Amino acid sequence: MFTIDHLGIAVKSLAVAKNIYEKLGMSCSPEEVVAGEQVKVVMVPVGESRLELLEPTSDASVIAKFLAKRGEGLHHVCLRVPDLPGAVARLKKDGVRLVSEEIKIGAGGHRYVFVHPSSTGGVLLELVEAHH
Amino acid sequence: MFTIDHLGIAVKSLAVAKNIYEKLGMSCSPEEVVAGEQVKVVMVPVGESRLELLEPTSDASVIAKFLAKRGEGLHHVCLRVPDLPGAVARLKKDGVRLVSEEIKIGAGGHRYVFVHPSSTGGVLLELVEAHH
Repeated sequence: MFTIDHLGIAVKSLAVAKNIYEKLGMSCSPEEVVAGEQVKVVMVPVGESRLELLEPTSDASVIAKFLAKRGEGLHHVCLRVPDLPGAVARLKKDGVRLVSEEIKIGAGGHRYVFVHPSSTGGVLLELVEAHH
Repeated sequence: MFTIDHLGIAVKSLAVAKNIYEKLGMSCSPEEVVAGEQVKVVMVPVGESRLELLEPTSDASVIAKFLAKRGEGLHHVCLRVPDLPGAVARLKKDGVRLVSEEIKIGAGGHRYVFVHPSSTGGVLLELVEAHH
């Protein structure tokens, strides 16, 4: 079963960006700092998915660099896939460009990989395992 | 109940863009022309949502202009909301910038409105009614 796990949205201000979703009647999580990524995060649950609002806490953050280059907007789309190692193997065999060759281990032990936007119609695509 | 209805992704070539999703084992709809919008569309179901791959059929298309200005990538995020007229009224009262002031009627009779990216952290946000 494939689902959208979350949409990562780079914003200058969490307080401003979350306003629209609160006005729609959606609930936003408290701000949480993710020190390793140098960002503050607000999660907005939406059905089986989440919007992940990302504000940089340092100019060295990947999100700060994205904002400087592209401005506010969608940073990545994360899909849950049923078999991550199998999916990665098929993509590599097909010559699809990955951001890193290896499956990485993130917060809470979840496994993930990023597919380069040049292979996806301009969307930085994160893949995570469906069962985590 | 809020859900992500679809993500609209502007691409130069449907054939190229859909490849990654087929390689992941996802099923893609046949190409369909939406004459009124001057685009060809491939839908990729993903859980309760869909990816909507959009290739322009004319340089006058909104999607062609987006590609020329921004390149390939996410064009809009569409959320299903429980009460569209109520949501629009609350947003207007709060000074949120809408692309058009009126709720519009689209294909199949569904009602929709677009919220301007300046109010959403850089994301063109489409709202549709949850029951349609």
